[in-house]
Amino acid sequence: MKPALKRTLMIGLLALLLAGLIAGCNRGRRDETPEPVSAEGDLPANALQIAAERGLTPDDINAALKTFMPSGQWDEYLMFASGGHSGNMMVIGIPSMRILKHIAVFTPEAWQGYGFGARDIEEMLDAGNVNGVKIRMGDTHHPALSETEGDYDGQYVFINDKASARVAVIDLRDFETKQIVKDPNIISNHGSTFVTPNTEYVVQGAQYATPLGWEYAPIEEYEEKYRGLITLWKFNRETGRIVPEESFSIEAPPYWQDLCDAGKLVSDGWAFCNSFNTEMATGGIEDGNPPIEAGASQRDMDYLHIFNWQRAEAAVKAGKAEMINGMAVLRMPVAVEEGVLYLAPEPKSPHGADVTPDGKYIVVSGKLDPHVTIYAFDKIEQAIAGGNWELDPFGVPVLNYDAVKHAQIELGLGPLHSIFDDQGFGYTSLFLDSAVAKWKVGDEDPESWQMVEKLPVQYNIGHLTAAEGDTVSPDGKYVVVLNKWSVDRFAPVGPLLPQNIQLVDISDGNFKVIYDMAMGIGEPHNAQIIKTDKINAWTAYPEVGWDPIKQEKSEYATLPGEERIERNGNTVEIFMTSVRSHFTPERVRVKKGDHVIWHITNIETAHDATHGFQLGGHNISLSLEPGETVTFELDVSNDGTYAYYCTEFCSALHLEMMGYLLVEP
Amino acid sequence: MKPALKRTLMIGLLALLLAGLIAGCNRGRRDETPEPVSAEGDLPANALQIAAERGLTPDDINAALKTFMPSGQWDEYLMFASGGHSGNMMVIGIPSMRILKHIAVFTPEAWQGYGFGARDIEEMLDAGNVNGVKIRMGDTHHPALSETEGDYDGQYVFINDKASARVAVIDLRDFETKQIVKDPNIISNHGSTFVTPNTEYVVQGAQYATPLGWEYAPIEEYEEKYRGLITLWKFNRETGRIVPEESFSIEAPPYWQDLCDAGKLVSDGWAFCNSFNTEMATGGIEDGNPPIEAGASQRDMDYLHIFNWQRAEAAVKAGKAEMINGMAVLRMPVAVEEGVLYLAPEPKSPHGADVTPDGKYIVVSGKLDPHVTIYAFDKIEQAIAGGNWELDPFGVPVLNYDAVKHAQIELGLGPLHSIFDDQGFGYTSLFLDSAVAKWKVGDEDPESWQMVEKLPVQYNIGHLTAAEGDTVSPDGKYVVVLNKWSVDRFAPVGPLLPQNIQLVDISDGNFKVIYDMAMGIGEPHNAQIIKTDKINAWTAYPEVGWDPIKQEKSEYATLPGEERIERNGNTVEIFMTSVRSHFTPERVRVKKGDHVIWHITNIETAHDATHGFQLGGHNISLSLEPGETVTFELDVSNDGTYAYYCTEFCSALHLEMMGYLLVEP
Repeated sequence: MKPALKRTLMIGLLALLLAGLIAGCNRGRRDETPEPVSAEGDLPANALQIAAERGLTPDDINAALKTFMPSGQWDEYLMFASGGHSGNMMVIGIPSMRILKHIAVFTPEAWQGYGFGARDIEEMLDAGNVNGVKIRMGDTHHPALSETEGDYDGQYVFINDKASARVAVIDLRDFETKQIVKDPNIISNHGSTFVTPNTEYVVQGAQYATPLGWEYAPIEEYEEKYRGLITLWKFNRETGRIVPEESFSIEAPPYWQDLCDAGKLVSDGWAFCNSFNTEMATGGIEDGNPPIEAGASQRDMDYLHIFNWQRAEAAVKAGKAEMINGMAVLRMPVAVEEGVLYLAPEPKSPHGADVTPDGKYIVVSGKLDPHVTIYAFDKIEQAIAGGNWELDPFGVPVLNYDAVKHAQIELGLGPLHSIFDDQGFGYTSLFLDSAVAKWKVGDEDPESWQMVEKLPVQYNIGHLTAAEGDTVSPDGKYVVVLNKWSVDRFAPVGPLLPQNIQLVDISDGNFKVIYDMAMGIGEPHNAQIIKTDKINAWTAYPEVGWDPIKQEKSEYATLPGEERIERNGNTVEIFMTSVRSHFTPERVRVKKGDHVIWHITNIETAHDATHGFQLGGHNISLSLEPGETVTFELDVSNDGTYAYYCTEFCSALHLEMMGYLLVEP
Repeated sequence: MKPALKRTLMIGLLALLLAGLIAGCNRGRRDETPEPVSAEGDLPANALQIAAERGLTPDDINAALKTFMPSGQWDEYLMFASGGHSGNMMVIGIPSMRILKHIAVFTPEAWQGYGFGARDIEEMLDAGNVNGVKIRMGDTHHPALSETEGDYDGQYVFINDKASARVAVIDLRDFETKQIVKDPNIISNHGSTFVTPNTEYVVQGAQYATPLGWEYAPIEEYEEKYRGLITLWKFNRETGRIVPEESFSIEAPPYWQDLCDAGKLVSDGWAFCNSFNTEMATGGIEDGNPPIEAGASQRDMDYLHIFNWQRAEAAVKAGKAEMINGMAVLRMPVAVEEGVLYLAPEPKSPHGADVTPDGKYIVVSGKLDPHVTIYAFDKIEQAIAGGNWELDPFGVPVLNYDAVKHAQIELGLGPLHSIFDDQGFGYTSLFLDSAVAKWKVGDEDPESWQMVEKLPVQYNIGHLTAAEGDTVSPDGKYVVVLNKWSVDRFAPVGPLLPQNIQLVDISDGNFKVIYDMAMGIGEPHNAQIIKTDKINAWTAYPEVGWDPIKQEKSEYATLPGEERIERNGNTVEIFMTSVRSHFTPERVRVKKGDHVIWHITNIETAHDATHGFQLGGHNISLSLEPGETVTFELDVSNDGTYAYYCTEFCSALHLEMMGYLLVEP
């Protein structure tokens, strides 16, 4: 065959490849499949036989039919779950409980090309370093979807790193992390993230108290020098960034601030964080002291922190904050003086603080107390207005418990967190009971708050969440419980087990577990569930040559025909393109010792036409989504012959999509 | 309350916690649930209504009932899938398609405490560094379960890193990576891993040719200086380690060796790797050359590599290998002389080479040819014995195509890989058709090899796998197809999409997709599926104080009462224990500039009683499974007050499980 003919055939082949793809995309769609069954019709002849052979019970059959997603049909909800000490986030479809995406946040992840060379991402991760120590991991706990008027708006999601007190911003147009901020005054931040009703602020509570700026101070000076903190990170919705210069913190006693929730509707402007270890135990089991978990469990009451972020904002704007390590901090006396910070007793070692959808009540679970305790916001306002308080050792007003406590419901052992449905019920996780308690959200009459029923779960439930269940308008339908132990639930995979995330059907008066999802990729602590149709994600970047961190066209965008290699002394700059099925250029010649700046633009615009890039013998992994431009830099320390290639199986000739990096000695 | 009474109460509380746990473990088990349905009975009254409301078709209902796993029932099979450029591995339950575990291999992962300080793991990862460049990622492609007599034995699984030509060993007692070896002569290894029938060797084929040792040579000297390679890593089943000193390589022409499969039964002792780019194209699109994907697609035939690893082993033992960069290499002329290496033409740019369960036939898919081509092993033997060959430019015998080709079946566009069931059928992925072809595995009569039917899949299928489908005794029941593009299958999650892994029911003459699984955590290339009951995983380490890398008791094991902190000059050594709910010691005092060696022993023995450990402001994340001892080291460069804490929600007082690292200036 003549070369020209062969080349023509090749072009035909490539066209065929694309045609095959397009044809593929129209195949198997639901509109070509058989008719759905009708409720009046008969069951498919062999369905019962299948169920009997597999030992399914009637409940199993219903659960299967409620959770199965036919090919090509989209899950109704997306759950954003923290990844725990994986340091990342997971997106899970509901009701199928399939993991649709792993979003890299604090920890590098090579499939996404996150933290393996891409320059903008390295710079973003470096912003989260601590005193020069490169931090490339985290412990994510509580995702918070951005809200408008107290309802999820599908634009952003925030997440904290407990281990080093950092907060990250993820943009839901491309589901990628855009920013990491480090709190300059605390080193531990369990109780975050939570947003105010219009995402004015992302709230972050400290946990293990240290001196501000985590400076050294002897543990014996704990009460005098160690402090708690609540930080309000100002969020700019237009730029999609937290603005540290407009953010501020409120100093708090060295109780261990824990989970927070922002007020809404009637209680907008306020926020509520519980705390534990108001005993200010610091352990020392090795010296014969009680261990911390005993020392911190002595008192019958800890303190709900009640703070007014709008008053705090005004005080900061009025110049009443002190700059500490570059952050505006309202010191405790100022916060008290300005009516920003109050405490209220709460039973015992609480772990959850959740505001009811109408904003009128705050539900607190003392994990060592069998009740949930309900505080009425109007009673809190009255107690504050009436000065019905005493002062704690730090001079912070402690509101009278009986004045602010509205009701208590006895639920069971180890109550932790509460979430709400659209039928006027609350659901609380019971860690020690391994159960979920369903209870009636009452009204002004304290007796109207009533226990309804309990559902066993498997095992040791931590957080639970519900469809839009912590907004002003919960959807009902689903509760998801995040069990910490799975023990015998799944096939054996060694001593480190997955967690068991269970889907609970709460539609139409149901209250049943309908799916056990294994979570063997991290340990989600909390999650939020949003209606899928609220998400407006891009299918490709808006323009070829896009910089996803800046969310604008990159100055290094390279279009076909503009590919080139430029040398300037020892610096070699490469402007490369990728398209099915080649990189241009395919040969990169450099010398040992060169500094290489390497830009790649994926000129594809088709949905799903992602290319990957890895360079053998180097620690470089990139993901080039359609339209994306990525830059990495390399000090070439070894001579030799190296291959770079496409790591995403992009086309029939994907294996041939490679090039050589030739490093002369 | 008196302190003594309080302490008694605390102990009671802790006992309650454990009791709650144990009670929890017996709750919700299947033996307490209602009776299964019977095939003769009626469907639950509301099942059809649920199906109708959700728009399910009869096929959907059957699929739901075939894939749903009731709580606590174990998946029948485990699928080990590579993670692609995530550099890791995934364990997926079948038929539920739930991800039971993510196994960190080449890329650090913080949840598993892999690559974030644990000393043994860092040393293991460092063994995979390349010429001093720290590599902390990979591109995993083809997992291989260990075999005994050609059948999976459930003991180990191997996986390669294509990007830097490395191989890892994972022990299925604890599902953790134990060893990484770097091939000293190649920098790219797509066609691995594959094992010989008794796991004597782990086979690894090179891909993008470079000079041996990836030394620099101008691309213009490609034919003269660049080489292919096949490496046989010797595996010691007793120690669970590859033994590099007993391993060897076979030099090959600079064709791009691709996928391999070992012979079995009658063909035991042989192995088969296909190759592409026998054109030896090296691209240069930027200089007006055809791009590599065109240059490498000119010829109608490439070469199946046929090699005898037993003869190669004998030749190496007889001293006929040359040591190159510390590895014994049989140079090409020796390999030819010793009857080790042969080629056979194969149509066109092949991607799959798969041996039938009886070992008699080798099935090759030319991805640019619509057929699968079947080679008969006995015909290969005859051609070799009869000297029925010509020599390629490198002096390697090329067997006569017509003499060794047994049959061809026209399947469709873009055939890639083949797998087998227990009913005498083969299944081949068709990338361009987005389909799976089912065909009859024939016999000596070439006409008996027949196409049966085609199943559309969504979309762009790469590998496919079947239950024990590449062993001597496939199970049938399930085929899993690994589609590279999902396009419209799942709810939108931004420009980077999950892949779509589909479960195909092949039981009882079925041939239907019954589940779409989203894979948004990597890009699995290949997978193997083993019966769950073949896995004998530990639920806890055999002894408290276990070193999982050495798989023996650690010299740093610390039992209760042995906790201590020792100072020796500037070196501080900590012997710590963890147990629900405290670390001992709880206060660690060091000085800025100290070198800290920190051992932690998790003294728990209960199933699932894992503790995690992170240290704020430092890049340390550990996972301490029951009984495990881990060591990390730290040069303390900053003074200050830092918290360390348990990252696995282990008990009701988990948040209190913390301590302070106090670094004096």
